[in-house]
Amino acid sequence: MDFNYSEKSLDLQKRLHKFFEEHIYPNEQAYDLEIEESGNSLHIPQILDKLKDLAKAEGLWNLFLPDIEYGAGLTNVEYAPLAEITGKVWWAPEVFNCSAPDTGNMEVLYDFGTEEQKEEWLKPLLEGSIRSCFAMTEPDVASSDATNISSSIVSKGDNYIINGRKWWTSNAINPRAKICIFMGVTNPENAPHQRQSQILVPMDTEGISILRPMQVYGYDDGYTGHPELLFENVVIPKKNIIGGEGLGFKIAQARLGPGRIHHCMRAIGMAERALELMINRSLSREAFGKQLADQGVIQEWIAKSRIKIEEARLLTLKTAWLIDTYGKEEAKIEISSIKVTVVEAASYVIDKAIQTHGAMGLSQDTPLAKMAAGARVLRIADGPDEVHLRSIARREINKHR
Amino acid sequence: MDFNYSEKSLDLQKRLHKFFEEHIYPNEQAYDLEIEESGNSLHIPQILDKLKDLAKAEGLWNLFLPDIEYGAGLTNVEYAPLAEITGKVWWAPEVFNCSAPDTGNMEVLYDFGTEEQKEEWLKPLLEGSIRSCFAMTEPDVASSDATNISSSIVSKGDNYIINGRKWWTSNAINPRAKICIFMGVTNPENAPHQRQSQILVPMDTEGISILRPMQVYGYDDGYTGHPELLFENVVIPKKNIIGGEGLGFKIAQARLGPGRIHHCMRAIGMAERALELMINRSLSREAFGKQLADQGVIQEWIAKSRIKIEEARLLTLKTAWLIDTYGKEEAKIEISSIKVTVVEAASYVIDKAIQTHGAMGLSQDTPLAKMAAGARVLRIADGPDEVHLRSIARREINKHR
Amino acid sequence: MDFNYSEKSLDLQKRLHKFFEEHIYPNEQAYDLEIEESGNSLHIPQILDKLKDLAKAEGLWNLFLPDIEYGAGLTNVEYAPLAEITGKVWWAPEVFNCSAPDTGNMEVLYDFGTEEQKEEWLKPLLEGSIRSCFAMTEPDVASSDATNISSSIVSKGDNYIINGRKWWTSNAINPRAKICIFMGVTNPENAPHQRQSQILVPMDTEGISILRPMQVYGYDDGYTGHPELLFENVVIPKKNIIGGEGLGFKIAQARLGPGRIHHCMRAIGMAERALELMINRSLSREAFGKQLADQGVIQEWIAKSRIKIEEARLLTLKTAWLIDTYGKEEAKIEISSIKVTVVEAASYVIDKAIQTHGAMGLSQDTPLAKMAAGARVLRIADGPDEVHLRSIARREINKHR
Amino acid sequence: MDFNYSEKSLDLQKRLHKFFEEHIYPNEQAYDLEIEESGNSLHIPQILDKLKDLAKAEGLWNLFLPDIEYGAGLTNVEYAPLAEITGKVWWAPEVFNCSAPDTGNMEVLYDFGTEEQKEEWLKPLLEGSIRSCFAMTEPDVASSDATNISSSIVSKGDNYIINGRKWWTSNAINPRAKICIFMGVTNPENAPHQRQSQILVPMDTEGISILRPMQVYGYDDGYTGHPELLFENVVIPKKNIIGGEGLGFKIAQARLGPGRIHHCMRAIGMAERALELMINRSLSREAFGKQLADQGVIQEWIAKSRIKIEEARLLTLKTAWLIDTYGKEEAKIEISSIKVTVVEAASYVIDKAIQTHGAMGLSQDTPLAKMAAGARVLRIADGPDEVHLRSIARREINKHR
Repeated sequence: MDFNYSEKSLDLQKRLHKFFEEHIYPNEQAYDLEIEESGNSLHIPQILDKLKDLAKAEGLWNLFLPDIEYGAGLTNVEYAPLAEITGKVWWAPEVFNCSAPDTGNMEVLYDFGTEEQKEEWLKPLLEGSIRSCFAMTEPDVASSDATNISSSIVSKGDNYIINGRKWWTSNAINPRAKICIFMGVTNPENAPHQRQSQILVPMDTEGISILRPMQVYGYDDGYTGHPELLFENVVIPKKNIIGGEGLGFKIAQARLGPGRIHHCMRAIGMAERALELMINRSLSREAFGKQLADQGVIQEWIAKSRIKIEEARLLTLKTAWLIDTYGKEEAKIEISSIKVTVVEAASYVIDKAIQTHGAMGLSQDTPLAKMAAGARVLRIADGPDEVHLRSIARREINKHR
Repeated sequence: MDFNYSEKSLDLQKRLHKFFEEHIYPNEQAYDLEIEESGNSLHIPQILDKLKDLAKAEGLWNLFLPDIEYGAGLTNVEYAPLAEITGKVWWAPEVFNCSAPDTGNMEVLYDFGTEEQKEEWLKPLLEGSIRSCFAMTEPDVASSDATNISSSIVSKGDNYIINGRKWWTSNAINPRAKICIFMGVTNPENAPHQRQSQILVPMDTEGISILRPMQVYGYDDGYTGHPELLFENVVIPKKNIIGGEGLGFKIAQARLGPGRIHHCMRAIGMAERALELMINRSLSREAFGKQLADQGVIQEWIAKSRIKIEEARLLTLKTAWLIDTYGKEEAKIEISSIKVTVVEAASYVIDKAIQTHGAMGLSQDTPLAKMAAGARVLRIADGPDEVHLRSIARREINKHR
Repeated sequence: MDFNYSEKSLDLQKRLHKFFEEHIYPNEQAYDLEIEESGNSLHIPQILDKLKDLAKAEGLWNLFLPDIEYGAGLTNVEYAPLAEITGKVWWAPEVFNCSAPDTGNMEVLYDFGTEEQKEEWLKPLLEGSIRSCFAMTEPDVASSDATNISSSIVSKGDNYIINGRKWWTSNAINPRAKICIFMGVTNPENAPHQRQSQILVPMDTEGISILRPMQVYGYDDGYTGHPELLFENVVIPKKNIIGGEGLGFKIAQARLGPGRIHHCMRAIGMAERALELMINRSLSREAFGKQLADQGVIQEWIAKSRIKIEEARLLTLKTAWLIDTYGKEEAKIEISSIKVTVVEAASYVIDKAIQTHGAMGLSQDTPLAKMAAGARVLRIADGPDEVHLRSIARREINKHR
Repeated sequence: MDFNYSEKSLDLQKRLHKFFEEHIYPNEQAYDLEIEESGNSLHIPQILDKLKDLAKAEGLWNLFLPDIEYGAGLTNVEYAPLAEITGKVWWAPEVFNCSAPDTGNMEVLYDFGTEEQKEEWLKPLLEGSIRSCFAMTEPDVASSDATNISSSIVSKGDNYIINGRKWWTSNAINPRAKICIFMGVTNPENAPHQRQSQILVPMDTEGISILRPMQVYGYDDGYTGHPELLFENVVIPKKNIIGGEGLGFKIAQARLGPGRIHHCMRAIGMAERALELMINRSLSREAFGKQLADQGVIQEWIAKSRIKIEEARLLTLKTAWLIDTYGKEEAKIEISSIKVTVVEAASYVIDKAIQTHGAMGLSQDTPLAKMAAGARVLRIADGPDEVHLRSIARREINKHR
């Protein structure tokens, strides 16, 4: 195990830190204010576009993509600390063209797309001129088990006819989201894991309706929101299928490994930020004649936060290293493990940071409540924790059978 | 200890249950829909007013007030199970004129108000024709220690001049909130607990500005919301003071005992509702070839939820019984204890109910996310849990000194 | 729900407290010392017998037995607070002839024994002139499911021939234990719950060997110890069967309800004692320039201990009241609930009391380590917690099916 | 960060594993049996000496000592996985001359001893021909704060006169323990951290009495036990002082860094063993018609155990790497962190392994109960967890002051 960061990664970390200090943190309030003042909850702040231009100009762009030609050419271990930094502000990853679900979608196109598909969709995505969404989860089935997916993709001549209801389709409400990767059943007669396919659905195709925004607690997440969508007899040319019929489950699995590293490291970034806020608050507030920072209970929160963050980061780095070195198959236990433990760690730290801030910690005046909501989602997204624990246990038990 | 419910309480429980079955649950969606369709997040749904009329007509009104003439004349033990029922839907307490902060304000007026104050403000509050707010917490100080309150109430001739910044002033944004109980410093030279006073401030007085709504996890709670307020040179006649100068702290303490029973029992109502939703979901959903209700992990959640709810309810009833029998002073340890443990229990149950629902549990499609936010607030409101634990410990330790 | 204690119970509580202050606590060290100095780990201290005589003389005897002729004639609610007091010193229940498994055995004989069986065994047990044991658990099967019991009781003429291996047979090593209630299979062809019988086996019968003492951590519990026993072709007259063939499971269930109240209240007694020790230690020890009692972390332990004990006691009293009022069948969820939650509470308090004492807390210098071991056993005895949680969940879920 | 094991470490791991498979595990029962059959709880089993000879012959000896001449010449990262293996059986470290407190004592002599002291005591310790003890903790003071130590070492001519009471002096009861490192106050007038000294006290000096063995949960740990000792006017020549007067605190600190790595890695070894036992038990036991290994609750225990062990190991390895690379001063937060988190992880795994075994798990029939006791001690030894959490917090907070 070697978690040493390369020179390249260290250099990017330094530049990214600087970018945050100079451009992101100073604009956190401006970002919120611009949306509020627009009177339109779906408004895309101009400051976002300015920051994107700046990041692109500074070469802080597409850092997630391991291909050196299309992206930054970083290994997972090299990219991990960069993902951590971008996690400190919830809307920051997009500034560097590193936000979900675009990153996963770009990886899928890069790995499985035809040249034509890459030209039409991967290129503008890498340039950041369009955004994308991923229509997977369905309201009517337990999507933690992907074989439950019930939307249909039916062959008819040169086309497929798509029908289904999807929700939590992040970005779909964004007018810049031009393309959707849609998962549905093409071959119901196949074995369970070979029934689904993924297909590219341009968002301006007839038959797609945005039914309503889904909320997380009271957040609808504006232009990045997660609406429920209805696909009714949507006609898509056959060439839009990704990889081929029956590969849907395989492609869905493929995005999970690096994607897991990304969102876990971003969650660690949230946790570090929350710890920083907790400590600063504890230094600036007094109760019962003593600074909060001098009170034993809060000191325990701070110490336990530090321990949990350290452990979570080390296990995520080990997972990244395993993927880089031996491939995803050899890292299955760890990929599931970080799903559970990183979010638990982050949730703990954020919760204690909120408590240290009092009611303010739950309000719009700190990023903490939004972080808490984000962390809570992660206990469900990509399959609830319980499914992953079960999977870890079965692998452990099988070693002894 | 005798937690038997009187005939009167049992009868009211039965009628309240029936009212919920017939009128509240069937209107939960209508309530949300009416606000959504109004396009005005501050809209007060007409269905609310209809239900209030109905409740009043059925004698399910002012149940909280122990005075038999003004209210229902119930003891705390008798009222507790009614408060539990009203907690099952977050906006339901108002239907029975039993919602905070109006209940606490009415109690204060009943206990400390002059005849003139009662006539002008208590009467319409009891009739439900107006609403009220309580301006206590301030953004700039740790309000968990009430002696930190810094707003000023300065005597000038026949008037007081009020200045200060308050937040989390629930209801203040409601156009029907005609009166505010304001807490501030009248006598800075007094001993710490005799510096504050409470005064009645009509909300249409010049000098009061609503600065902005405060959010809790993205919720602004519409017409019941909790804005930040600025009081600038607000002139209020001296007769509006409650009780007299220097009684502010004492009056603030007085509302805490029964108020604690109310909100704890409502939290238990939330927890019972969440458990019900969890079980129903577990019976209607399958994963990996087995009903959720047959899966060991979810069974443990359900069993532990039942245990936690039972314990929380028994301790709250004991506290109610202690207050009824020996008075609040003798119930101090318990009044602090339920603050901490009831919310912990409710938070556990709600969290597991959310997890059982998957992403839907975090959305607007169940009442669970709103409940989770409400429970989180209760770990901070009325003083953070840590302050109450400290107070319990000091009393326990003092028994052995 | 009415948890008021009767005059009778209050009077006994007072006398029992006095007895502990005057006779039990002052002899705690003498008890240990006498065993140590005897050089025989199975030695029965003379001080025990003296205290038993004293307790008998003062009418503090057989308090557990609800029959007024044979015992004290107390309801479960009345006896509960007495059991709590006796739990404060691990060997104290025997002083009042209220120790397991004798109490359960006496109840079984009282409820199911013939007149002859009562005369021969119940009478001397009630007098305290003999002791007894209960041979149920077997090393080779999961005894949490009583239908797994595999020892055989085979009819042969006027006798039964008994074969089997039992362990954790508390008291069996005590030379005063003259009688054993043995559970085994008489009717393997019956339905699973009607295969077992219970039979009275005099301990001096040929064919019984004590194989070895079982330890809990490093404790063997001396004369009250829990050996592994071998029964080889033990011949017992048929009249010794209790109740009749096939009633073994039913009789085993019958002892569980009141027995659960007893051991849960004793566990609460342990917890109260541990809290007392924790507070006293925190008042007598300083670290880093401050009394432990003034340190926030320890204050939280004390406060949470108080809350957990209160909740555990209330739920146990409710369970006792349910059994008294509606019978055991109506109290099934609660009987399982207290199994889990009381021990969890006691374990928490004891653990924190140990931590407050440092290494001394783990040694023979306080009763805490022995308590911790006792509490740990209770998470397994009478079926592991997980079995009880499962059973609670199934009952809760069935309400909604 | 580079946790790659060197060829040398990998080779030793392999040989150590083999040694355990061939010699340690097969003798676990024989070891217990030999002591039991000797009728002497202090008996040193002959099998231990045979295994020591074997280990020495195979070069698996003094692995802990980083000096290549005296020991194996391993870095902390290289030794860590070896310490983990030795932790799997509680008495195994001594087989490889790697058991506490001998290892710490040898390190102290190596780092601070004079040539004469090394010749007389270090040499036979390294050969394993004698054992040693460390008299630090005192019954009358909070030894978590080393400046509280109150034993006196008074200069008188060419000698020191030593007086004091010590306890938890592991090994002191062992007849082979020929030498004791004693900590006491030589210079009461100095600044608090310069008052103490450490001195070599031959155990056959007049004036040393073994008062009694201290127990941990009923265990006295036989010949490795932890007695209370009285030192009365013990006369020791001045040349026996280690390093010089006033260096006691500094020397005590010096042993903590690598010592922490050692005991944490051994605790991880215990946890791995416990997990193995838990899985094997779950595969061999059925309840309610299903193998334990197929039950969701037990699967969660197994999965969470794996995650906790992984995290604990990674953080310990990082700490070892920090010490190797930057020195102990730069690893202070981590050295405290692993104290807390490794033991928490191990305690969790051991507790669940016990629960999976039922009552057997608490008995002498598995190593689990002994492990649980060992893990519980580690929450107190070297200073209670709370002291370490406080120290972590202060360092974290200081980064932001």
